[in-house]
Amino acid sequence: MAPSLSPRPLPSILLMSLIPVASWFVVRPLLDPIPPLPALWASVGFSIFAFVAALYLVPALGPTFVKANLKGKDLLKVYSDPIPESQGLVCASIYILLLILFIPFPFSTSIASLSGGGSKIEGLLGAASLHHELSVYLSSLLSLLIATLLGFLDDVFDIRWRHKLPIPLIAAIPLLMVYYAEGGNTHVVVPIPLRPFFGLLVNLGPLYYLYMSLLSTFTTNSINILAGINGSEVSQALIIAISVIVNDLLYLPWPFDFRIPVHLLGNQIEVEVGGAWHAGMAYGSSELVNRHLFSLYFMLPLVGVCLGFMYHNWYPARAFPGDTLCYVTGMAFSVVGIQAHFSKTLLLFFIPQIFNFLLSCPQLFGIVPCPRHRVPRFVADTNLLHPSKTVFDKRPPTRLASLTLHIFATLGFTELTMDPTNGVVLEATNLTILNFLLLRLGPMNEKKLVQVLICTQIAGSVLAFTIRYGLAGLVYDGDRR
Amino acid sequence: MAPSLSPRPLPSILLMSLIPVASWFVVRPLLDPIPPLPALWASVGFSIFAFVAALYLVPALGPTFVKANLKGKDLLKVYSDPIPESQGLVCASIYILLLILFIPFPFSTSIASLSGGGSKIEGLLGAASLHHELSVYLSSLLSLLIATLLGFLDDVFDIRWRHKLPIPLIAAIPLLMVYYAEGGNTHVVVPIPLRPFFGLLVNLGPLYYLYMSLLSTFTTNSINILAGINGSEVSQALIIAISVIVNDLLYLPWPFDFRIPVHLLGNQIEVEVGGAWHAGMAYGSSELVNRHLFSLYFMLPLVGVCLGFMYHNWYPARAFPGDTLCYVTGMAFSVVGIQAHFSKTLLLFFIPQIFNFLLSCPQLFGIVPCPRHRVPRFVADTNLLHPSKTVFDKRPPTRLASLTLHIFATLGFTELTMDPTNGVVLEATNLTILNFLLLRLGPMNEKKLVQVLICTQIAGSVLAFTIRYGLAGLVYDGDRR
Repeated sequence: MAPSLSPRPLPSILLMSLIPVASWFVVRPLLDPIPPLPALWASVGFSIFAFVAALYLVPALGPTFVKANLKGKDLLKVYSDPIPESQGLVCASIYILLLILFIPFPFSTSIASLSGGGSKIEGLLGAASLHHELSVYLSSLLSLLIATLLGFLDDVFDIRWRHKLPIPLIAAIPLLMVYYAEGGNTHVVVPIPLRPFFGLLVNLGPLYYLYMSLLSTFTTNSINILAGINGSEVSQALIIAISVIVNDLLYLPWPFDFRIPVHLLGNQIEVEVGGAWHAGMAYGSSELVNRHLFSLYFMLPLVGVCLGFMYHNWYPARAFPGDTLCYVTGMAFSVVGIQAHFSKTLLLFFIPQIFNFLLSCPQLFGIVPCPRHRVPRFVADTNLLHPSKTVFDKRPPTRLASLTLHIFATLGFTELTMDPTNGVVLEATNLTILNFLLLRLGPMNEKKLVQVLICTQIAGSVLAFTIRYGLAGLVYDGDRR
Repeated sequence: MAPSLSPRPLPSILLMSLIPVASWFVVRPLLDPIPPLPALWASVGFSIFAFVAALYLVPALGPTFVKANLKGKDLLKVYSDPIPESQGLVCASIYILLLILFIPFPFSTSIASLSGGGSKIEGLLGAASLHHELSVYLSSLLSLLIATLLGFLDDVFDIRWRHKLPIPLIAAIPLLMVYYAEGGNTHVVVPIPLRPFFGLLVNLGPLYYLYMSLLSTFTTNSINILAGINGSEVSQALIIAISVIVNDLLYLPWPFDFRIPVHLLGNQIEVEVGGAWHAGMAYGSSELVNRHLFSLYFMLPLVGVCLGFMYHNWYPARAFPGDTLCYVTGMAFSVVGIQAHFSKTLLLFFIPQIFNFLLSCPQLFGIVPCPRHRVPRFVADTNLLHPSKTVFDKRPPTRLASLTLHIFATLGFTELTMDPTNGVVLEATNLTILNFLLLRLGPMNEKKLVQVLICTQIAGSVLAFTIRYGLAGLVYDGDRR
């Protein structure tokens, strides 16, 4: 029996209880005694609002989307009810609108002077740098908004995926322009082994702008190509955002002291975080605190909308994200990586995406044929997903394709079907992480697969933290510019 | 015979000649000797690019729009070919993208230091105010982009017009937030007759924010409701933008001197503009020069895209603007009116729109029935437009409706058809400026009507300048804050 596709129930008690909590967080920075990091309180409040808004608006606007022909059929189900598509637009709109309403909290001179009346805490924003920070914040919002618009245009005009690879470049232009106008830093710290050749700092100049553009292209598209099953896009975004938040929290001034036992990971120095109102791992650098506060302002509400949307996108999905969600979340990660200067750490949180991208390269660049959809194959009788296959039916594989596929098969990334007479490859499982997981762990149902994907993403983040705070000590010293 | 609806021909000589000219203007600020007002040169260059881009991209993307179901039938034609709708999106995208690419010219510290090497001209941007100006510029871009997105959503989801009246309020939020965060001025100069009661300046506080929101709602919707015939929306935007530009030019530092003979208009003081590198009517105030430069940066490329689009939207139209164009142009006018502090002058350029709005009020607020379309009625045999009518077929007019209609009929704004037996109003011509023009000047064809509309708009602007620089001297002195 096909499950009914009525919207998931929403307990009204949740709304009743969350709205006052969120309001309290938003109002708290204005009340005496002013808390330390007042804008962060407001940001938490706005994030709860983001969660509630996504939770309620996504199902409420579903019929409107279906009516405007923004709908899709779930390929991996027995039923063919139309599911509202592109509802990432709702998430993106909530997210950006709340980020705009948030502007006065960190950047208003009048609110800043309010908190100036309280105790001066080391590492808080000085009013002098407000204008600079505001320009950077606004240029980030512009990039997010352009990503939203382009993502939605992609959904409406259904741009071919090969043509849409460069779209994030356009969305990154405001970031780059303001970075340039502000005379942004284009120096990078050289890893210790290379310092005899390049010195401590290298000015990459225009190459740095190229790097930033490519970063946004990567973060955006890498989420977009790891898609196809219920909850896959939004869960990736959620785990990455939470990882960034955990990393940011390490740099905030905490009223308590804790240590990370990095000596267990072979690092020379002990990482000590905190101390009474010391700036966490920022070691008193107000610049580092500001950067990571900036990152938190963008990541906290992103977690809010993603959680709210995930409730409706979870198996079996009542709402689809469309390209819009992938674009806006990917751009949000680029924004914080670039503006808060931790793009290398950020990329570490994309380990599953990097793996998926490298795995996909032969199909993305046309060496191996790429069908319209590479999602796993659904077998209705067992309700299980199996790896889907690409077929060499038009022409036999080139020598390069054969070589690549044989290497990938040896590594266990794909499974080949060969002509028993001449050994020519006839079929190969599609080169995505989802098919790879199904290949290695055996067929499973869609819900299980997305859970495995989430675990992979979490494992990737744990590995990322290990590398960042353990192994990075081998090639970088504490000099973090 | 129905005219063929192939796209209008584009002479390639135009492309060949305009691209080098535009490039020269863009590069000029970087070449020695640095000209005075270097960013203005770049702005002119970008505006030419905007014109060329709109001219070529609008027809090139037409089929894509039709394919994505963004198409409309021209109601006032004998043929029913689908015309691409919402192509204001193309204009808005070109406009905003060029405004973003323009950022380094006025705001980059490195380009500013370049021109600092040249001669220091009174009234040019100082590097100290760059951050502040950049935040304001970016918040304006955000508002324009939100207006674009909402306009396009309106086109896709076809929001009922009563529901979409408040949409510009959302788009104005970034403006208001940054205005607040920057501690924006909420004082207004009191007209001379009221000064005994209120003093020279009055702090409107929150009321000023309300005024700014209402301004954006008005500029956006007033263009949107003066629509329906080929070229009407874009020609309004064009004339208003040109009027704003003419007004801005009065405040720039000119190398020559001229006088406006305002004594002919009964003004006490002579208005003298210019003097060798004096700041025009800014009388040496660099703040006024900066404000009007800011306005020019937004208005010049707007004229560019409007001109390019108008070529294809001109009777018989090959492309429709959709709500997107009205939203983005209306928001652009609000942006310059608010940020450059000449909202009262701006409103004077909206005299035809104000008249149309007041005329429409009885229908907008439901006193008189409002049909889905109020465009003039097309008579295919004569190819002429006649005033369209609203019919009291469901229920007889209320007393308020009768009274309003009789007053309007006495003033010549509408024509009533009455039941000869009891004098009850049966029909009235729809209350729009287009129907009013047809009523007063007699039936005419669509091309003639849009020409009359353009003349009306130009006459309105001439009247506006007369009021602003003639009569305003009676209620305001030179104190312009």
